[in-house]
Amino acid sequence: MRIALGVEYDGTDFLGWQRLSHAKTVQGSLEQALSFVAHAPIEVTAAGRTDAGVHGRCQVVHFDTEVVRDLRGWILGACSNLPHAVAVTWAQPVPDDFHARFSARARRYRYRILPRFVRPALDARFVAWERRQIDAEAMNEAAQAIVGEHDFTAFRAISCQAAHARRNVRSIRVFREDIHVVVEIEANAFLHHMVRNIVGSLLRIGRGEESVGWMAELLAGRDREVAGATAPAEGLTFLGPLYEAHWGLPQEVTL
Amino acid sequence: MRIALGVEYDGTDFLGWQRLSHAKTVQGSLEQALSFVAHAPIEVTAAGRTDAGVHGRCQVVHFDTEVVRDLRGWILGACSNLPHAVAVTWAQPVPDDFHARFSARARRYRYRILPRFVRPALDARFVAWERRQIDAEAMNEAAQAIVGEHDFTAFRAISCQAAHARRNVRSIRVFREDIHVVVEIEANAFLHHMVRNIVGSLLRIGRGEESVGWMAELLAGRDREVAGATAPAEGLTFLGPLYEAHWGLPQEVTL
Repeated sequence: MRIALGVEYDGTDFLGWQRLSHAKTVQGSLEQALSFVAHAPIEVTAAGRTDAGVHGRCQVVHFDTEVVRDLRGWILGACSNLPHAVAVTWAQPVPDDFHARFSARARRYRYRILPRFVRPALDARFVAWERRQIDAEAMNEAAQAIVGEHDFTAFRAISCQAAHARRNVRSIRVFREDIHVVVEIEANAFLHHMVRNIVGSLLRIGRGEESVGWMAELLAGRDREVAGATAPAEGLTFLGPLYEAHWGLPQEVTL
Repeated sequence: MRIALGVEYDGTDFLGWQRLSHAKTVQGSLEQALSFVAHAPIEVTAAGRTDAGVHGRCQVVHFDTEVVRDLRGWILGACSNLPHAVAVTWAQPVPDDFHARFSARARRYRYRILPRFVRPALDARFVAWERRQIDAEAMNEAAQAIVGEHDFTAFRAISCQAAHARRNVRSIRVFREDIHVVVEIEANAFLHHMVRNIVGSLLRIGRGEESVGWMAELLAGRDREVAGATAPAEGLTFLGPLYEAHWGLPQEVTL
């Protein structure tokens, strides 16, 4: 049978999502914990891989198993065997044609920036530090240029393995929240480093180094070398994928 | 001259605020960093001491020194010599009759609870885990009973060294924020463990184990043994003290 899980993690101390033979990763830790619960090897497929230091609020994975455990058993068994920085938040049986990655209709990310003269301490694991004040309104205005279906080559990592660079950004919003500036973005899917490259370019606009019209120029130019630097991993949280309602999965996170 | 500083910290890995010879504390780390900057011993006095694991958003301290450094030098010098979990966020010269503790007119705390079947992972350092759902509205209604000047013996740790237990709670609010339940409280001053003991009692009401009227009964009864257990340290953040405007200190935190 196929089971879907919600997974939450503080990515600080992991070398990203994807299983590696030589380093601690979220996928590796999760598979180890589930295999312990199942007394059999378990491999999971995730909605989206995250890079080293990036956090997950409601990552979704699926796995196939012949082993019978009740849902509570999967959740609590996994949590007991996971590092403190990772938890399974729900478990649900799904039909065999559900696929955590291919069934996802959209993904949502949140990026948090602390614009302050002094480095962060309280939130150091969860915010990117920006030494100067930044203009969140200008960033928000500029960001609207990328909404819709476009070729996102300008914001794509060289290492990106996707077949093509067309993605559909459904919404992006930049706003102040308490002492932070937050970027929230939803798209059908993302290229490697796409959110962090978009944020890196928006930061150049926020600092006044580029005009509000620059995002549109970058997008049209399709040249990664012109765009801003990749923003740091620690500011980024994968809020999770969205699925069609008929799968009946929990949607804990609301934007 | 006397200088006031704003101090922010993630208290997870410290044995509280107060300097100890045998353990890492926030005060100890701060004094060590400032003494390094001054090339002379510096001792600080804080607005409020926090317990092991409790966080600080805008703690305020003052210290006296003959050493001349510009304000930027104190801030950046301290930050360079502090652990990553502590930062000095501002520095300001103050008159000799300013006192971080005695000049403070009020203090504010925030307590964050994650009511969920599964333990926290993403926010594990900054929330208290409550396995069941809780009634935030009932907690908020019950909490209003402690507003005003009262004898808070019912919520005072046995180890509390204060001369008396009368404190003036100016406001307390319990509300849902995203997936958390938050308690925000402001008082002229607090007894040892007072916030965590109040939250521990409110949790019993939130779970339905006690009625909404129970807070008023506890307060009137003045018996610590009847009230709820001390809520865990990790959920608590000291937002900071409030001073009269004439001191001209930054008030970064808004409730």
